[in-house]
Amino acid sequence: MDLNPLILDDIINSCLNEDIGTGDITTNSLVPPDSVSKAFIHCKCNGVIAGLQVAEKVFAKLDPAVKFEYKIEDGQEVEPRTVLAEVEGSARAVLTGERLALNFLQRMSGIATKTKEITELISMYPVKITDTRKTTPGIRMLEKYAVRVGGGYNHRFGLYDAILIKDNHIKMAGSITQAVNLARRTNPHTVKIEVEVQDLDGVQEALAANADIIMLDNMEPSLMREAVDVIQGKALVEASGGISQDSVVAVAKSGVDLISIGSLTHSINALDISLDVNELK
Amino acid sequence: MDLNPLILDDIINSCLNEDIGTGDITTNSLVPPDSVSKAFIHCKCNGVIAGLQVAEKVFAKLDPAVKFEYKIEDGQEVEPRTVLAEVEGSARAVLTGERLALNFLQRMSGIATKTKEITELISMYPVKITDTRKTTPGIRMLEKYAVRVGGGYNHRFGLYDAILIKDNHIKMAGSITQAVNLARRTNPHTVKIEVEVQDLDGVQEALAANADIIMLDNMEPSLMREAVDVIQGKALVEASGGISQDSVVAVAKSGVDLISIGSLTHSINALDISLDVNELK
Amino acid sequence: MDLNPLILDDIINSCLNEDIGTGDITTNSLVPPDSVSKAFIHCKCNGVIAGLQVAEKVFAKLDPAVKFEYKIEDGQEVEPRTVLAEVEGSARAVLTGERLALNFLQRMSGIATKTKEITELISMYPVKITDTRKTTPGIRMLEKYAVRVGGGYNHRFGLYDAILIKDNHIKMAGSITQAVNLARRTNPHTVKIEVEVQDLDGVQEALAANADIIMLDNMEPSLMREAVDVIQGKALVEASGGISQDSVVAVAKSGVDLISIGSLTHSINALDISLDVNELK
Amino acid sequence: MDLNPLILDDIINSCLNEDIGTGDITTNSLVPPDSVSKAFIHCKCNGVIAGLQVAEKVFAKLDPAVKFEYKIEDGQEVEPRTVLAEVEGSARAVLTGERLALNFLQRMSGIATKTKEITELISMYPVKITDTRKTTPGIRMLEKYAVRVGGGYNHRFGLYDAILIKDNHIKMAGSITQAVNLARRTNPHTVKIEVEVQDLDGVQEALAANADIIMLDNMEPSLMREAVDVIQGKALVEASGGISQDSVVAVAKSGVDLISIGSLTHSINALDISLDVNELK
Amino acid sequence: MDLNPLILDDIINSCLNEDIGTGDITTNSLVPPDSVSKAFIHCKCNGVIAGLQVAEKVFAKLDPAVKFEYKIEDGQEVEPRTVLAEVEGSARAVLTGERLALNFLQRMSGIATKTKEITELISMYPVKITDTRKTTPGIRMLEKYAVRVGGGYNHRFGLYDAILIKDNHIKMAGSITQAVNLARRTNPHTVKIEVEVQDLDGVQEALAANADIIMLDNMEPSLMREAVDVIQGKALVEASGGISQDSVVAVAKSGVDLISIGSLTHSINALDISLDVNELK
Amino acid sequence: MDLNPLILDDIINSCLNEDIGTGDITTNSLVPPDSVSKAFIHCKCNGVIAGLQVAEKVFAKLDPAVKFEYKIEDGQEVEPRTVLAEVEGSARAVLTGERLALNFLQRMSGIATKTKEITELISMYPVKITDTRKTTPGIRMLEKYAVRVGGGYNHRFGLYDAILIKDNHIKMAGSITQAVNLARRTNPHTVKIEVEVQDLDGVQEALAANADIIMLDNMEPSLMREAVDVIQGKALVEASGGISQDSVVAVAKSGVDLISIGSLTHSINALDISLDVNELK
Repeated sequence: MDLNPLILDDIINSCLNEDIGTGDITTNSLVPPDSVSKAFIHCKCNGVIAGLQVAEKVFAKLDPAVKFEYKIEDGQEVEPRTVLAEVEGSARAVLTGERLALNFLQRMSGIATKTKEITELISMYPVKITDTRKTTPGIRMLEKYAVRVGGGYNHRFGLYDAILIKDNHIKMAGSITQAVNLARRTNPHTVKIEVEVQDLDGVQEALAANADIIMLDNMEPSLMREAVDVIQGKALVEASGGISQDSVVAVAKSGVDLISIGSLTHSINALDISLDVNELK
Repeated sequence: MDLNPLILDDIINSCLNEDIGTGDITTNSLVPPDSVSKAFIHCKCNGVIAGLQVAEKVFAKLDPAVKFEYKIEDGQEVEPRTVLAEVEGSARAVLTGERLALNFLQRMSGIATKTKEITELISMYPVKITDTRKTTPGIRMLEKYAVRVGGGYNHRFGLYDAILIKDNHIKMAGSITQAVNLARRTNPHTVKIEVEVQDLDGVQEALAANADIIMLDNMEPSLMREAVDVIQGKALVEASGGISQDSVVAVAKSGVDLISIGSLTHSINALDISLDVNELK
Repeated sequence: MDLNPLILDDIINSCLNEDIGTGDITTNSLVPPDSVSKAFIHCKCNGVIAGLQVAEKVFAKLDPAVKFEYKIEDGQEVEPRTVLAEVEGSARAVLTGERLALNFLQRMSGIATKTKEITELISMYPVKITDTRKTTPGIRMLEKYAVRVGGGYNHRFGLYDAILIKDNHIKMAGSITQAVNLARRTNPHTVKIEVEVQDLDGVQEALAANADIIMLDNMEPSLMREAVDVIQGKALVEASGGISQDSVVAVAKSGVDLISIGSLTHSINALDISLDVNELK
Repeated sequence: MDLNPLILDDIINSCLNEDIGTGDITTNSLVPPDSVSKAFIHCKCNGVIAGLQVAEKVFAKLDPAVKFEYKIEDGQEVEPRTVLAEVEGSARAVLTGERLALNFLQRMSGIATKTKEITELISMYPVKITDTRKTTPGIRMLEKYAVRVGGGYNHRFGLYDAILIKDNHIKMAGSITQAVNLARRTNPHTVKIEVEVQDLDGVQEALAANADIIMLDNMEPSLMREAVDVIQGKALVEASGGISQDSVVAVAKSGVDLISIGSLTHSINALDISLDVNELK
Repeated sequence: MDLNPLILDDIINSCLNEDIGTGDITTNSLVPPDSVSKAFIHCKCNGVIAGLQVAEKVFAKLDPAVKFEYKIEDGQEVEPRTVLAEVEGSARAVLTGERLALNFLQRMSGIATKTKEITELISMYPVKITDTRKTTPGIRMLEKYAVRVGGGYNHRFGLYDAILIKDNHIKMAGSITQAVNLARRTNPHTVKIEVEVQDLDGVQEALAANADIIMLDNMEPSLMREAVDVIQGKALVEASGGISQDSVVAVAKSGVDLISIGSLTHSINALDISLDVNELK
Repeated sequence: MDLNPLILDDIINSCLNEDIGTGDITTNSLVPPDSVSKAFIHCKCNGVIAGLQVAEKVFAKLDPAVKFEYKIEDGQEVEPRTVLAEVEGSARAVLTGERLALNFLQRMSGIATKTKEITELISMYPVKITDTRKTTPGIRMLEKYAVRVGGGYNHRFGLYDAILIKDNHIKMAGSITQAVNLARRTNPHTVKIEVEVQDLDGVQEALAANADIIMLDNMEPSLMREAVDVIQGKALVEASGGISQDSVVAVAKSGVDLISIGSLTHSINALDISLDVNELK
């Protein structure tokens, strides 16, 4: 469960710049450069924590000497008043970095928490919950990481690392068969091909074309079950389309291999996490 | 209600790069470079739309010749099946840009919709709803714009454009009085000073120190009313701290000038917006 | 056969900056800003041309008004003295951009030419020639494009879009079986898994672990044939390891699906291409 | 023989990003973050090594704690199975950085080796072999360094640091005389002026115009000798134009001061260098 | 008196790149990489020093091991031959960084010195001298810092952190009153509004509109005094417009709160500061 | 007299970002997006104008449709109230870009004016006035251009395009002779070598070593004359070191070829140039 450090570094640089701009004029006016502080990051509600290393790097970027001591690990479920980490070092770094560190932590933990809630609903079924490309622009890497922390799985990372043939692509190619063949012919052999289908005819055609993955788009669970029966394990089966906490169990029961859910990342509540400075001198 | 075009350009470049990476291998395999398409962006639920110009720029970045025709304007309330815009041009640009354009539009409209819901609750009171710095890292400009679209107001943009003295800053300075004086002495005369207080003593001291704005942090509405009475218009009064749809009216009745609400941006549901290709050739 | 225009733009910007630095002091001293010229790019030897659109963009970056007329298309085989394109416009843009445009064109055509030579050797066998990650740092996108132009196929684009388990990875995981299972468990279902093996035991184990692709590393053609017989189409079979013009036919005869060749990109001769200015005023 | 560290840093960052993208999904799946390894880089053929510090920086960028111990120095001639360096540290950094480090090392060593072969052919003559601007776009600094390592010399670095008046420039200015005078008048006195000539008349005119360097373009060695006799040391004399291993000695005998050869960088064979992991835990 | 380290880092990187380009060919030719030197930075004239930490960072960027020992602090007034700092470490870093370090130090000290001269002229009056936005493009942060070092104050940092309504803005809005109201309505409550006025009518109207700051533009001191009398402390009063050493005392006597002076940054004499290498080995 | 457009574009982008940051909150509040204005840039004093194309590009970057009509050309001497250009287009672009456009124009014209004053003092002598590397960090290209506009010449652009051997370099090398030989041996033959000397012995040694340029550092004019006599045209002769308007004629009379003057760029007075909006609707 890793974060590419070069990309993380770019994200943090650019987001610190967004918040600090020409300078934190409050802290710089009131806190001497050599002040040190000890602070605690704690969670004020129930949830699954994700993003501690991101918070750590925010402070480290402002002052590499800041000590960030993990009190729990990413993925742990916490109760109100759980201390997540202790941050000790330059008071300026702590106060200036606080908001950005929390903004990451709150959002990522919100995603992990929602993912966990859904994965627990279907934990008795051999199905994986995955995210989608409906992430917040600019921080997809962090949001997909949070999904993994919450027990979910990632779908493709972007338009570049897998083929997903949707209805418009099929229209252009003429048929599912022609679309799959064309995609196969012009892409690296290392690339999987997924086809989105709306009905059993689509399932049959995608299967015949040797699609690696068949996405059942907005189907009723009963129809999904039929599709699963047709496919018989010859392709991975993914359910997709507006699936929520209410419908996920019914979908899981249909026997699909994967359920992709956009709201894991596009509609979440930030966890209530805050930073308290205990000592300041 | 403007977006800095230089910053918008940077955001779109970097977010397109995040999604496209080395290339949209599906579209590039299946859609000839000279295909053209006509598509409609429509909303599938009720809400307030924000971000149309951002969506427009996503497609324009992929192909400047794409025509993006506005069917409504940002800020308009829509019902399910409202067409928001028509996009006509390179089929590749439309299909490759679709997800990023929608990701922006859905999130920004979600913020505008939530803001609108809250501002309507207090529309009979002379109080403004403002956002906070609890925005998604990297796209603050877009989220603050969406708040304005929804009828809300912006708080400071970052750490650089206003002074907000919180408890930790006060501890360092010794007292509210000393903190305000010190901040006044070392900053441009163009900068306002806001002080966060927890009780009436704090209110009194901040007032005496000539703070421009006094933030009442996590106070009961009844205490806020007392504070407002004490302040008598000599400073702006801002209420803050976990205020939600449930409590906002009570706070508004207290007579404060401003209510800042973090959840306007940190906990929202994306609006359900999609793009349908009508013609493709 | 597309090039991501955003990445291409970055590459050209950065390479123009490398060559021009603070300015083309020769051209700027001697050629008035409003001079126009007509020039021809021609090839002085036999070969397959690749990179015309890259050359076009080099000139367009220096002056968007330069007209670049294609006389042939990428992929065409040419004889000495074939005119590839006519370039008309600002004499400064033509003279300043000449070297960079040619550097791209000569190298990319060299790759396409070498690829074509090899693909023709095995044209009677149902096998694809692919490149590797042994590309020149910084311009992989262009070199992989040139391989496609020459009739070859691309292997994965980088470390991010497919899994290739090599001996060191197997050592760490304990066995091929454990490595494949672990990789499957922690990665998107959209990702293929390739395993590099040295002998038939490896082939058997990779096959049993349901590897999507099995790479036969540095095997004799006779052993490759045995491996192909064992695999029976249940996985794609890739031959790799020091394969050259001399050995490629023997490898092709073994029945493998793919032959990956590093020297397609790491050891090539630039095609001899030059630009002649015909008119200058 | 130095590499500008700021530019080197940019090149390595951008090339690592090209290869790693969103992450090395193989290594990250299979190698725990705290694994360490010891590896050897060795050469499998004869050649001159160049680029060890570049390889070192690739690993250092991924993990500053990686120890890179030089077993030989750049410029040394090696035989098959020579160990070039030992790399010890984070197994992830070693495996993820391997390909990029080798891609640099193989290409740079290929250039140094070819340069050495040619400089040895003419070692008995008082002539210098130089490179040209026909380098791979984006890594010119590294390729020019490799030429120096191989015993060659650098021509100008780009269009910005010396004046080279070619036939088209002369056409624009009216004559060699006018071109040199114009270039002299508008450029810093610190800049040398080189003129490309095709015949003895050109030599005479360039000499009379006080050109600092006269480039004999595509002349027969016998004509070069005449040119050298005419010039009599009043300007540096450079031979250029399709000079290869076959013709370089004849050119050297003509008495020119410098021979510039584009194929030193545009047409080379990568040296066969690989990395073997010995210990991994 | 702080400098945002992230912005400082960007400035130094980009300015070092401007000067060094592909490399310091003199130093790299003549000074071995392991040479060390001890050097002194001293001032050859009277003045106030500003920018020592900027100079320090220039050397540190070239070699983090360089020791930069402060002999005085920013803000100190010095006489000819005062040693400002001792620089010890890599001779290459010292010689390559010398010019850029001095360019910053000389310019910043020139600004601090000019500011000091002016602030001393009015030291007996309760008025602050401020800078303007007439700074050298690209290094505003450094120039505004130098003004603070010299005893001056900063006006707004840019167009983003305060509102300054000038005559053209007033024309567009219709009147001062409408302009102030409109600006108040659409901007964060944290933003101050300054209005530029030319006469007493303007003063009256701006005051009635509750402008936070009133700028008296190009008024005679006597008229300024009248304005101050009218305003009676209800808004800050700023004098502006071509004020110089000759007129500043008269302006100060008028009772304004602030005097902004563009020439603090746009027309200054660099202090004569140089670096001498004492030891070199 | 050209400016590299790619570098100019970068400079303007980065400087606009410095001034505008998150947005011009005054203009955006008060000026509707579709307002248009006509404005005049005029000079309020005597001087030589430089930088009109830079000002033009500032406005073009904010709105490509802005029309910028040149009323005079760079290099022209103007009197008070001369109109330099007419700017017509988006009122927002004009008002937001005004300050940056003027900051460039005022500073560059200040440099051109000072250069012109000095070049006129020595116009009867066959000597060129050159700038130095004592430019404002980040905008050297613009300042060196302004020097050329004022009738001066450029010295080297940076550390990368010519060799200038100073006393510390000589100390390291052992002697002038060894320094020149070493520099010659390791650098491209296209690079000139300049040597800084303090006395006639240095002149003799530099001459014997075949230095291309000899810089007479801080010599009395009478000693310079002796040096010129010794050198007899075998090398270019440059005078340097604290030369001002007062001393430049005496130096010119000594017969040197070049006089380099740091204060052309490090100590100048901005020209008083302003922008007036005539029409606004």
